Amino acid sequence: MSGQFITLEGTEGAGKSTNLEFIKEWLTSQGIEHIVTREPGGTEIGEAIRAVLLNKDYTAMQAETELLLMFAARAQHLQEKILPALQQGKWVVSDRFTDATYAYQGAARGMSFERIAEIEHWVQQGFQPNTTFIFDLPIEIGMARVASRGGETDRFEQEKQDFFEKVRASYLQRASLAPQRYRVLDASQSLQKVQQDIVARLQAMQQAVEKTA
Amino acid sequence: MSGQFITLEGTEGAGKSTNLEFIKEWLTSQGIEHIVTREPGGTEIGEAIRAVLLNKDYTAMQAETELLLMFAARAQHLQEKILPALQQGKWVVSDRFTDATYAYQGAARGMSFERIAEIEHWVQQGFQPNTTFIFDLPIEIGMARVASRGGETDRFEQEKQDFFEKVRASYLQRASLAPQRYRVLDASQSLQKVQQDIVARLQAMQQAVEKTA
Repeated sequence: MSGQFITLEGTEGAGKSTNLEFIKEWLTSQGIEHIVTREPGGTEIGEAIRAVLLNKDYTAMQAETELLLMFAARAQHLQEKILPALQQGKWVVSDRFTDATYAYQGAARGMSFERIAEIEHWVQQGFQPNTTFIFDLPIEIGMARVASRGGETDRFEQEKQDFFEKVRASYLQRASLAPQRYRVLDASQSLQKVQQDIVARLQAMQQAVEKTA
Repeated sequence: MSGQFITLEGTEGAGKSTNLEFIKEWLTSQGIEHIVTREPGGTEIGEAIRAVLLNKDYTAMQAETELLLMFAARAQHLQEKILPALQQGKWVVSDRFTDATYAYQGAARGMSFERIAEIEHWVQQGFQPNTTFIFDLPIEIGMARVASRGGETDRFEQEKQDFFEKVRASYLQRASLAPQRYRVLDASQSLQKVQQDIVARLQAMQQAVEKTA
């Protein structure tokens, strides 16, 4: 299986969407077959679950409910979309994956990491991304960027700065514990500099895949 | 807490709906404050999850996804509706609860009982119904009753007889392991006889509550 699984993580406004597009273009330029997807969602059933999760009227949603919905969508995403694509040798690029669950439902909402790890183990059976890019940016800058875009905010985007500070700290802590998988990108740098770092990592992945092929 | 939690279980066409109405009328006649609810669903968020679970177009739904969605809806139902009502001393009558998860997602879909028990323990922390009525009927009779009603079938109702035989056997097995909680009702008897059995149990519950009050 030469397919590689890449995930993009970060708080709002840190540049995930822009760089997802950049990664997609780079893979195309290299002739690497790939799909781009997102969580929560990525499948028809997953997108229906996403609509429940993000509905800003559902302020009564329990933290346990939110966590179980995230993994329900993920189980579907893995079995129906991610694993089949990887088995066909495609690269898969996902806007968010399980790191977001540890950061948002764990660190920010207070669900225990042990509980999340149990469900993760059951749903993923050890499966992990090959590379996770973390777009790191001070929360106030990201929130200002999001605000300047305008538009409706979802249930998560309505949280306060303190919530996102916990998310950010959790991402950085997870990255520090497994530095070989994560690439933390300082999103306050120029976009050009960020994308140089991304390409460096992608090229290293490409070479590693070619070596084992 | 004098509130009592009653659940109704059984395969399709065995008389749950008719007897749910009967139990509701009996409680009203006794002046017992109560609410009637259902799973999956029972809350606004839970009903949105139910719509995903029952959508007959979602034939690709993974068993893991189905199981996690069931408990996501249940966590919401418990915290938002069932536990607050019981704490106010109300009786709660639910059309299905966790026994259905063991029967449908466990016995019929093949999810491990150990896994279900883990998630159950996390979501319910030992909480169980005071009484579970199981409406037991040969599958072919129940399916004929449902067919004669007409109307659209949901994703579960589209399963075949073999699936429901496993559900039925699982309910009976669970009842045999904890006979003090379950009351298995032979739904092939006359409705009058079934309802005599129901009233006998409800009266016993009422007397037990009054004794401890």
